[in-house]
Amino acid sequence: MTQAKTEPAAHMGHHLCMPEDARKRAARRLKIARGHLDSIVTMLEQEDAYCVDVLRQIKAVQGALSGAGEVVLRGHLEAHVATASTRGDSVEIVEELMEALKYT
Amino acid sequence: MTQAKTEPAAHMGHHLCMPEDARKRAARRLKIARGHLDSIVTMLEQEDAYCVDVLRQIKAVQGALSGAGEVVLRGHLEAHVATASTRGDSVEIVEELMEALKYT
Amino acid sequence: MTQAKTEPAAHMGHHLCMPEDARKRAARRLKIARGHLDSIVTMLEQEDAYCVDVLRQIKAVQGALSGAGEVVLRGHLEAHVATASTRGDSVEIVEELMEALKYT
Amino acid sequence: MTQAKTEPAAHMGHHLCMPEDARKRAARRLKIARGHLDSIVTMLEQEDAYCVDVLRQIKAVQGALSGAGEVVLRGHLEAHVATASTRGDSVEIVEELMEALKYT
Repeated sequence: MTQAKTEPAAHMGHHLCMPEDARKRAARRLKIARGHLDSIVTMLEQEDAYCVDVLRQIKAVQGALSGAGEVVLRGHLEAHVATASTRGDSVEIVEELMEALKYT
Repeated sequence: MTQAKTEPAAHMGHHLCMPEDARKRAARRLKIARGHLDSIVTMLEQEDAYCVDVLRQIKAVQGALSGAGEVVLRGHLEAHVATASTRGDSVEIVEELMEALKYT
Repeated sequence: MTQAKTEPAAHMGHHLCMPEDARKRAARRLKIARGHLDSIVTMLEQEDAYCVDVLRQIKAVQGALSGAGEVVLRGHLEAHVATASTRGDSVEIVEELMEALKYT
Repeated sequence: MTQAKTEPAAHMGHHLCMPEDARKRAARRLKIARGHLDSIVTMLEQEDAYCVDVLRQIKAVQGALSGAGEVVLRGHLEAHVATASTRGDSVEIVEELMEALKYT
C-alpha cells in the first residue's frame, strides 16, 4: 500500500532519508489522528449520530494530518531541499516537491 | 474525544439523525482511511522512509477523509437542510452548517 | 468569460436569483480583493519583489475570495437550499451544490 | 498595502530577489485572474445572477491564484531554498517559508 509512483530521490543514485526527529514526531501525530478517526467510526455506529458533528470531527482529523504533513515538509526542506545546490539535484528535488504539494 | 462543542440541532427540541445510508457509507470510507493511516505509521517506523513519499500518503488519506466528508455533507443537505423551511429552522441550520464548513 | 457550463437552476423551469443583500455584499468584497490583486501586480513590477511576500499577498487575496464565497454560499443555502423540499427540487439542488463545492 | 509583517530575507543582511522569469509569469497570471474577477463583479450587478454560478467563478479565480502562487513558490525553492545551505541561512529561510505556506 505504499503506492510510491516515482522512485524516491533516485535521481541522485543514493537515497535521501527522513530526519529521525521528524519521522518520530510525524508518527506520534499520526497515531493521535488514528485514535481520533477510530472515535468517529464508533460515533457513526450510533443511530443518533448527527451529520454536523461528524463533519466537525472529520475536519479535526484533517487538521491533525495537516500538522503531521507540516512536520514532514519542514524536515524535508531543511534536510534535503536546503542542501540541494550542494548536492547538485535542485531541479529534480524541487520538481518532486512541487508535484507532491500540488495535491494539498 | 467527541468534542461536541455545541448541542447538535438542539434548536428544534428534537434530534436530527443522520440518514442510515450516509452513515454506513461514511463509516466504510473512514475505515479504509484508517487502514491507509496505519500503513503510513508503519512506513515511518522504517529508517529509510522518504519525506516526499510520506507527504503523498498523508495527502491521499486527506483525500479519503474529504470523500467521507462529502458523503456526510450530501446526506445532511438532502435530509436536513432541504427540509429546513418546512421545519422552520432555516436560520439555525444554515448558521450551524456554515460554521462547520468554515474549517475546511 | 462567464463560463456557465450548466444552465443555472434550469431544473425547475423558473430561475432562482441570488438574494440582493448577498449579491451586494459579495460584490463589495470582490472589489476589495480586486484592489489587493492590483497591488500584487504592481509589487511584481519591482525588481526587488521577494517571493515570500508575494506568496503571502496571494494567500491574503485567496482568503478574501473565500470570504466572498461564504457570503454567496450562505445566501444560497438560506434562499434556495432550505426551501428545496417545498419547491420539490431537493435532489437537483443538492447535486448542483455538491458539484460546485467540490472544487474548493 | 504590502503588509510585509517580517522584513523579507533580512536575515542575511542582503536582499533575496525573485527570479525575473517567475516574476513575469506570476504577473501575467495575476492579470488574467484580475480580468476574471472583474467579470464576476459585473455578473453580480445583474439581478438574475445565480449563486452557484458565482461560487463556480470565484473558485475558478482561486484556482488561477493558486497557479500564480505555484510559479512563485517554485521560483523561490529553486533560487533561494535550494541554495540555503551554501548561503548558511537554512533555518531562517525554511521557517519563513513554512509560515507563509501555513495559510494555504
